[in-house]
Amino acid sequence: MSEAPHLTFDLDTPGLSTGHLVVPKGSDCEALSLPVFSLNKGEGPRLLITGGNHGNELEGPIVARRLVEWLPEAQTCGRVIIVPEINPLAVQAWTRNTPIDGKNLNRVFPGRADGSATERIADAVSRLLLPMADTVFDLHSAGPTMDFPPAVITHPIADADLMAKTLRMAEAFKLPMTLVWQYHDTLGMFDTWAHSQGKVFICAEFGGGTVGAEALAIYEAGVRNALITLGLVEGEAEYPTFRQQKSSRTLETLSSDLLRSPTRGIFEPRRSVLDEVKQGDLIGVLHPMESLSADSIRVRAPTTSIVCMIRSGGHVDADEEIVYLARPLNL
Amino acid sequence: MSEAPHLTFDLDTPGLSTGHLVVPKGSDCEALSLPVFSLNKGEGPRLLITGGNHGNELEGPIVARRLVEWLPEAQTCGRVIIVPEINPLAVQAWTRNTPIDGKNLNRVFPGRADGSATERIADAVSRLLLPMADTVFDLHSAGPTMDFPPAVITHPIADADLMAKTLRMAEAFKLPMTLVWQYHDTLGMFDTWAHSQGKVFICAEFGGGTVGAEALAIYEAGVRNALITLGLVEGEAEYPTFRQQKSSRTLETLSSDLLRSPTRGIFEPRRSVLDEVKQGDLIGVLHPMESLSADSIRVRAPTTSIVCMIRSGGHVDADEEIVYLARPLNL
Repeated sequence: MSEAPHLTFDLDTPGLSTGHLVVPKGSDCEALSLPVFSLNKGEGPRLLITGGNHGNELEGPIVARRLVEWLPEAQTCGRVIIVPEINPLAVQAWTRNTPIDGKNLNRVFPGRADGSATERIADAVSRLLLPMADTVFDLHSAGPTMDFPPAVITHPIADADLMAKTLRMAEAFKLPMTLVWQYHDTLGMFDTWAHSQGKVFICAEFGGGTVGAEALAIYEAGVRNALITLGLVEGEAEYPTFRQQKSSRTLETLSSDLLRSPTRGIFEPRRSVLDEVKQGDLIGVLHPMESLSADSIRVRAPTTSIVCMIRSGGHVDADEEIVYLARPLNL
Repeated sequence: MSEAPHLTFDLDTPGLSTGHLVVPKGSDCEALSLPVFSLNKGEGPRLLITGGNHGNELEGPIVARRLVEWLPEAQTCGRVIIVPEINPLAVQAWTRNTPIDGKNLNRVFPGRADGSATERIADAVSRLLLPMADTVFDLHSAGPTMDFPPAVITHPIADADLMAKTLRMAEAFKLPMTLVWQYHDTLGMFDTWAHSQGKVFICAEFGGGTVGAEALAIYEAGVRNALITLGLVEGEAEYPTFRQQKSSRTLETLSSDLLRSPTRGIFEPRRSVLDEVKQGDLIGVLHPMESLSADSIRVRAPTTSIVCMIRSGGHVDADEEIVYLARPLNL
């Protein structure tokens, strides 16, 4: 019989303690040891912070490790568990999915004890870490091909009370955008499983493009704002400056708000994230690839809306996602 | 006997004319047809603008095609030849080097008529386009792994007169940074060959990270500024806004100004490009990879300087380039 997933230390130890979450070996790889930081200041909110769910989104692991530097001192109550890299196999390979089994950790929750490596990780997290928390911050980012503002994302939740609590928590980050995303592919997401367990689950989506010092500072400020709202640390929340503005908008994007590339080519963005566009406004230009001298195709806004994601200039295939539009959330 | 490289049209045709530069077939591929735009308004400066020298730097092709939209109308004199993609094989593959022969077009100049595909392209450009120009703007970009301000780069040139003319032309872009880069690997560069022919050669280096609408607007403004200084178009030069500032600095970076990664790991940038640092200031943190729980290594400034390039947060190998420092140019 195979070993069960376990922690190498006692999460109830007061103060800061560190150890590992051991994911048992399987037929595809040896046992994995995920570094875990437990910050126990007694009664209060119980929070789990995870990074590295997708291994090519390194803002999460970096911001999680920055929290470990100052949070043990700043935290006044409650319990925080930080796992900077919940998918170390993908983080080490710098790939979205786990290289061993090709699986997306964020689509296999709650996992399987007798499954492949990715499923065993999800199983260990679901059994041993998720029950210890009432709130989860899962730190993602948009990757290098999409331009995206620092944001917190949630998907529509059937339970109205949980939806309202989640939205309040999301807005507490005070990031430039809070987005309710009607997304088609939520089965097996960490989000979906945590919601089913009644948890408030926050997916910080943290911008696209270059991972620079300014972007990391905005992300960390967002998490700190949320920690203040939760009552875990003292201080005053601050709106981080993004594109010369300090503001925060709550938007929703529907399945119909997605624009896809009309053909294969080089996409040239003509708008930036959070720009408002009117019907017919130019959003981007597609330069067809097969014939470099063919006429370019102009991509225009089908309706008055706000650009919430736009593809970075570069190659796109036909029917690939190039722009997500959004509108103010109307609850 | 193989066909010679040739143009499908007469560059002396007045006004805007378009056609192709034909690179003859060889043992490795069929003949290539590179779209060429010729803007002939008679006497005056003669300028060649090229993009897509490296196929994964798409700012150049995009900005070159934007010029084709307005320059034919705006140009008042002289001659401009625009080749948006001088290495279409690499642009179509979205790779730095040419996939067929693995060669870097920017290291094989002046090329060889009987060489591989990349060498035949360099040969055709060297023979048929370069002699038609006194000035060359080669539009590059820093790629997604380096954060870099919009900039014009030149390397030290032995001919003092050509160096002074090149620097004046570079500064005419009024981009945030003009950089004289003491670089170790200039053999076979388009720059080096053009200098040997007495041409003023400008390498616009155009930022790293996401290719967004704002970055493209800055790049296009820089090229327009330079066209105004050359006297090809009328108008007033403007300093593009970058990181909330309108300014332009001329810097130099020496071989000794390069900081390399002390070990394999995840690099976390703590400074942004154009930040000034004092000796001992923290520039970045390296989180060792092999043991994710090992202590992080702090990368500090060895001397008072300016950050001119910094690696985007992500994986780095041991001894990989992570930061270039610079100092004001002291001629």
